[in-house]
Amino acid sequence: MKIVMLGAGNVATHLCLALQKADIKISQVYSRTEVAAVKLANQLNATHSTDISDVFIDADIYFYCLKDSILEEIIPQIKAPEAIHIHTAGSMNVNIFAPYFKNYGVLYPLQTFSVNKAVNFSEVPVFIEASNEKVEGKIKNLAQCLTSKVFVITSVQRIKLHLAAVFACNFTNYLYTLSSEIVSEANLPFDILIPLITETADKIKSLTPLDAQTGPAVRMDQNVISKHLALLDESEDKKMIYEELTKQIYKKYRKEI
Amino acid sequence: MKIVMLGAGNVATHLCLALQKADIKISQVYSRTEVAAVKLANQLNATHSTDISDVFIDADIYFYCLKDSILEEIIPQIKAPEAIHIHTAGSMNVNIFAPYFKNYGVLYPLQTFSVNKAVNFSEVPVFIEASNEKVEGKIKNLAQCLTSKVFVITSVQRIKLHLAAVFACNFTNYLYTLSSEIVSEANLPFDILIPLITETADKIKSLTPLDAQTGPAVRMDQNVISKHLALLDESEDKKMIYEELTKQIYKKYRKEI
Repeated sequence: MKIVMLGAGNVATHLCLALQKADIKISQVYSRTEVAAVKLANQLNATHSTDISDVFIDADIYFYCLKDSILEEIIPQIKAPEAIHIHTAGSMNVNIFAPYFKNYGVLYPLQTFSVNKAVNFSEVPVFIEASNEKVEGKIKNLAQCLTSKVFVITSVQRIKLHLAAVFACNFTNYLYTLSSEIVSEANLPFDILIPLITETADKIKSLTPLDAQTGPAVRMDQNVISKHLALLDESEDKKMIYEELTKQIYKKYRKEI
Repeated sequence: MKIVMLGAGNVATHLCLALQKADIKISQVYSRTEVAAVKLANQLNATHSTDISDVFIDADIYFYCLKDSILEEIIPQIKAPEAIHIHTAGSMNVNIFAPYFKNYGVLYPLQTFSVNKAVNFSEVPVFIEASNEKVEGKIKNLAQCLTSKVFVITSVQRIKLHLAAVFACNFTNYLYTLSSEIVSEANLPFDILIPLITETADKIKSLTPLDAQTGPAVRMDQNVISKHLALLDESEDKKMIYEELTKQIYKKYRKEI
C-alpha cells in the first residue's frame, strides 16, 4: 500500500507518526513549505516534494491534512482517479472530492495537536465518512490500526463536532492564556493553576458540566464579581469576556434553578 | 484543639473532610440551612447549629467558608476574641476581621469543589495569610496537615489569583457546557469530547498556553470560521462568545507572530 501525505503541519505530523507506529508506511510528504516537508519526511524515511507536479500519481491512498482553503486548491491537481482520497478536516464536507474522484472519504481525529507535544493516538476518537461502503471499510480498517475509537458520522455531524471542539479546546486554551497573564501580574507562577485546571477537566468525567459549574457567577456572588471587574478596568478584552460569560452563566442557572 | 466550621457548602464540606482525614476534629458545624448543617455534621460526628447564637464561644479556631456577603454579616456575631479566625475566600481581604479580632488569617484552597466529586486535597495548593507571625505559623501548620503545597501570599495577590481561577476553571467549565449542547444537537454523546478536553488541560503542563493554542482562529482559517458562525445563527449567546474569542485570539497571535 503506497501512501502520500499532503501537508506537513501539526495534524499531518501526528497522523503520520501514528501510522508509522502502526507499521503503515508513508512514501511521500508534500508541503509547499520545504522545511516542514523535509522535517516530516526525514522522520518517516519518506521522500518529500514541494512541487505539486512531483507528487506520486501511483499511490493507493492520498491524505489531505491541509487548511481548508488550500485543500480546495490542491484536490484538482492530484492526478490519481482510482486511488482513495481522504481529508482530515473537521468542517469540510466529504463531497469536496466528488467532482474529481469516486473513492474518497474523511478521517477526522478529534484532538489538539502541537508540534512539541506527543499524543497517544490510541485514545483519540476518529470520525470517518466515505463515498461508498467499500471505501468506508478500507478507511475503517486504517483508522482501527490507530485507535479503538472509530465512529462513522455524517459531514453535518462532523462540522458540529468541530464547532464543539473549538469551544471545548481552542477557546478553553485561550482562557488558560488569559489566566496565565493574570497570575503573572500577581507575581505568581502559572504552575499553581495546574491542579485546578486538571480537576476542572477531570470533573466532567463524572459530573455533567452543567452540574460541575462553580464560581461567583453561578452562586450570584455580586460582591466578588464587582471586585473582579474593578481589577479588569485596564484590560478591556478580559473585561469583555468576564462580563459576557458571567452574564450567560447567571442567566443559564437562574433558568435551571 | 476545638474547631468550629461556619458554612456547610462545597468548600466547607471538602475542607472538613480533608481535616478529618488528617485526624483534625471539627466540633461544630454552623449553617443557616439545616439540611446542609446536619448532613455535614453527621459526616464529621460533630454537633450542628442553625442559630448563630448557639455557636460555641470557646473554640480555638473558627473557619468561615461563607459567601462574601454572608461573611461580613456573620463575623461581628462570633464572640470569641482570643480565638483564631480564618476565612477561605479568594477575594476577601484578610483585614475584614481586624475590627473584631486580633488573631486571624486566610486559608484559601485553589480548587473547584462540587458536592458529588471527591478531591485529593494533598494536591491542592493552599494560600495563607495572617494577622501576625504566630498566627501565620499556626495556620501554616494546619495547612501542611492537608497538603504539601502551602504558600504565603498577600490579599492583593490572592484576589488576582481568584480572578485567574475564574477564567481557568469557572469560564472553562461553562465552555464545556456549551460544547455539550452543540454535540447533543449533532446527536452525539458528550463523552466523545473527553479525550480532547483532557489533552487540552494536559498540554499546558509541558507547553505554555500561548504555545499550545490551536484551531481556526490562531491559523486565521476564515473558511472554517464562517461555517461555524453560520451554524450559530440561531444561538445568539454562543455566537457572541465565538466572535469575541475568535477576534481576541486572532489579535493576540497577529501581534505575537
